[in-house]
Amino acid sequence: MAKINPYYKNLTREYIFPIIDEKLATLKKSVPQNEIINLGIGDIALPLAPSLARAIKNGVEEMTTAQGQHGYGPSEGYAFLRETICQQEYARYGLTPQEIFISDGTNSDATNLPEIFDPSSVVAIPDPSYPAYLDASVMAGKRIVLLPCLEENRFSPKPPAERVDLVYLCTPSNPTGQALNRQELTEWVDWAKKNQAMLLIDNVYNCFITSKEVPASVYEIPGAQEVAIEMRSFSKCAGFTGLRCAYAVVPKALPGVHALWVRRVNAKSNGVAYPIQRGAEAYYSLEGTKETRAQIATYQKASSILRIGLQKLGHTIYGGIDAPYIWWKTPNKLPSWDFFDQLIQRCHLIAIPGRGFGKPGEGYMRLSCFTTPEKAAEALYRIENRL
Amino acid sequence: MAKINPYYKNLTREYIFPIIDEKLATLKKSVPQNEIINLGIGDIALPLAPSLARAIKNGVEEMTTAQGQHGYGPSEGYAFLRETICQQEYARYGLTPQEIFISDGTNSDATNLPEIFDPSSVVAIPDPSYPAYLDASVMAGKRIVLLPCLEENRFSPKPPAERVDLVYLCTPSNPTGQALNRQELTEWVDWAKKNQAMLLIDNVYNCFITSKEVPASVYEIPGAQEVAIEMRSFSKCAGFTGLRCAYAVVPKALPGVHALWVRRVNAKSNGVAYPIQRGAEAYYSLEGTKETRAQIATYQKASSILRIGLQKLGHTIYGGIDAPYIWWKTPNKLPSWDFFDQLIQRCHLIAIPGRGFGKPGEGYMRLSCFTTPEKAAEALYRIENRL
Repeated sequence: MAKINPYYKNLTREYIFPIIDEKLATLKKSVPQNEIINLGIGDIALPLAPSLARAIKNGVEEMTTAQGQHGYGPSEGYAFLRETICQQEYARYGLTPQEIFISDGTNSDATNLPEIFDPSSVVAIPDPSYPAYLDASVMAGKRIVLLPCLEENRFSPKPPAERVDLVYLCTPSNPTGQALNRQELTEWVDWAKKNQAMLLIDNVYNCFITSKEVPASVYEIPGAQEVAIEMRSFSKCAGFTGLRCAYAVVPKALPGVHALWVRRVNAKSNGVAYPIQRGAEAYYSLEGTKETRAQIATYQKASSILRIGLQKLGHTIYGGIDAPYIWWKTPNKLPSWDFFDQLIQRCHLIAIPGRGFGKPGEGYMRLSCFTTPEKAAEALYRIENRL
Repeated sequence: MAKINPYYKNLTREYIFPIIDEKLATLKKSVPQNEIINLGIGDIALPLAPSLARAIKNGVEEMTTAQGQHGYGPSEGYAFLRETICQQEYARYGLTPQEIFISDGTNSDATNLPEIFDPSSVVAIPDPSYPAYLDASVMAGKRIVLLPCLEENRFSPKPPAERVDLVYLCTPSNPTGQALNRQELTEWVDWAKKNQAMLLIDNVYNCFITSKEVPASVYEIPGAQEVAIEMRSFSKCAGFTGLRCAYAVVPKALPGVHALWVRRVNAKSNGVAYPIQRGAEAYYSLEGTKETRAQIATYQKASSILRIGLQKLGHTIYGGIDAPYIWWKTPNKLPSWDFFDQLIQRCHLIAIPGRGFGKPGEGYMRLSCFTTPEKAAEALYRIENRL
C-alpha cells in the first residue's frame, strides 16, 4: 500500500475527550441525566435564534424555485455576506469585502492557512492552547516552538527569542479565558514586522470582550494589516456551532498572501451552503443582533456568577471577563485529573482538565460558561457545599 | 514577511473561467440574457427537490427548540446519515457506517485525502481531468504523472509504467463523460495491489450510470477495499451543489489509513451543518428518491437529445451515456478556443474548451447536460442551423 504520512505518529498529545466521555458514561449509570452539569466542551447551550433560523429557512425555500435556484456559490463566499461583514466589522479599518473569506469554520481556516506559507515554516503556538493548531502543525511535519502561558506572565504569550515564521494567537483565549490587551497586541505586531513573521489571530470570542483595553480586532493596532490574518466565526457569537460558518480576513497589504489564498480557496473548496450564509447575514439584522446579544448576555451572566462566586469561596481563577472560559487553579495544587475526578464524583460537574490543552495547563481546570445563570448558580452551590 | 509556499508559482494551468466569463459578458451586451444557453459549468439546472428542502427546514426549526438544539456535531458526520448511506449504498459490499465520512464536498475530500499519505508520494492524474486534482497536487509540491486519456484508448486512463503512489480516477469522468467498465476497473484494482498504490476514486456521477458493464461503485470489484477510497457527493445526484454535502468511503481494510483519516478529520474539521445532513438523509426517503430520480431523468433526456442529435448531424462525440457530459470533437480539427468562439458568436451557446482540462483536451469541447430537454433541443437546433 502507499506509504502513510510519517508525521502522524508524532501526534502524542493526550487525547482527553474519550477519557472524559468514559468517565461521564460511568457517572450516568449512577446519577440521573438532568442532575449532571456539563461545563466541559465549549459548545453553545441555547437554541438557535428565531430570526437567524427564519433567514436560513427562507434561503432553502428560495432554492426550491426556478428564480431562486442556487447552485455552486463563490468559493470565497457570497458578496452579500462579505459586504455585510465588511461594513459592520472591518470597513472602519479600511478593509474591503475582497479581503474577507467565508469558510465552514475557524478550525478549517486555522489549520488550512499555513498551507500558503513555505512548508519549512517554523510555527509558534501558545501553550496551553486550542488543540487543532498543534495537531495540524504536527501532521504537516512543522517545527514547533511553544509559547508558555503561565500565571507569572498573566497567561499572555510572549514573542520567542528564536526565529519563527507563523504565530498562532488566540485572543480572547481558549482555554485560559484571558485576552491580549492593546499594549500586548501592539508588541506582537511590532515584533512580527521586525522579525518577518505572520500572525494568525484566532479571534472567535470577540463578542465576549468587555474590557476597554482589549481590542475587538487586531486591526485596531496600526500596521497590523501588514502582518496579521484574523479569523472569526459565527459559532459562538451567533450560536452557529452546528451550522458551520466563519471567516478569515486576509488583507491585501500582505504581499502575495492574499492572491495565494484566493488560489487555495478556489482550488480546494466550493464555499459554504447558500442558506447558511443567509443565516449568518441575518446575525447583523436588527432582530438578529437583538436576539444574539441576549444570548451572549446570558452566557456572560453565567460567567460572572461562576467567576465572582468562586472568588468569594477563596478559589484562584483567571479569565471569564473577556471570554466564556474560566481558568480555575486547582485547590492545593491538585493535579488536573484528580480535581476532575473530585468535581465529577462530588458535584456531578464536568469541566476540562487544563492538562488536556498542554503541559502548562497542569494544575488548572477550564470551566466553560456556555450555560444558563441557573445552572451556573447550581454548579456554584455544589462546589460550595459538596467539594 | 513569512515566506510563501514556493510551489504555488508552479500553478501554470490556463485558468479558463475568467476568460469565459469575460467572453460571456461581451455577448450579454449584444444579446438578451434568456437567449444565451449555458452548457458550460457543470452545475445543476433544476430547483431543490421539495422534500429535501422540507427536511432541511425541519432540521433548522428543530434547532430553535431547547430539546432539538444541535451544537457541534461529530466531525465524521451524524450517525443517522452514515448509517443511511451505508444501508442504501455500501452494506452490500460488507462496508460499515464507520467507514463512511461525511464532508462538505468531494472537492475537499479529493484535495485533502493525500495529506494522510507520505508527503513524497507520487500522484498519477488522468489528463484531461477535473482541475482540482492537479492544482492541489502542484500546491503540495508533489511529483505528478499524467495519464493521457485519448481517442485511441477510449479516453480510459491506463496504469503507468513508472512507480506512483496515489492515483486519481474519475469515473464516470469529468470532462470526457466516459466511465471505466468492470474490466478496466478490475485491471486498476489488480495493478494497485501489485504495485502498492492507492486509488482515489471520484465517483460523484454514479447516479448517471446506465451501462450494465459500468460498476456503480469500485467496491463491486473483488479486493477493491484493500486499495481504493471512493468519493461520492449529493451535489449532482440530489441537486446539492449549493448546499455542500458529500462523503468518502475509507475502508478499514486499508491498514492504518482509516485511523489516520479519523485523526485528520477530527483535527481539521467540525463536520457539516446538521440541517444539511438531514436534507441529505431525505434523498433516500421514498419521496426524495422519486423527486431526485425525476431530476436525473430530465438531465439524461437532455443528454440523449444532444448526443443523438449531434451524431445525426455527423459530429463525433463521446460520453453522455453514463455521465452528464458530452466530449465533443471539434469539427475540422478546430482548436478548442476557436470552436468556443464560433459556438458563442453563432449559436449563443456556452461550452467549455477541452483544452482547459489539460493538453489532450485540445480539439474537444465539454458540453454539460445539466439543462432541460427544451433547452437541449434549442441548442441542437442552433448548432444545426447557425454553425
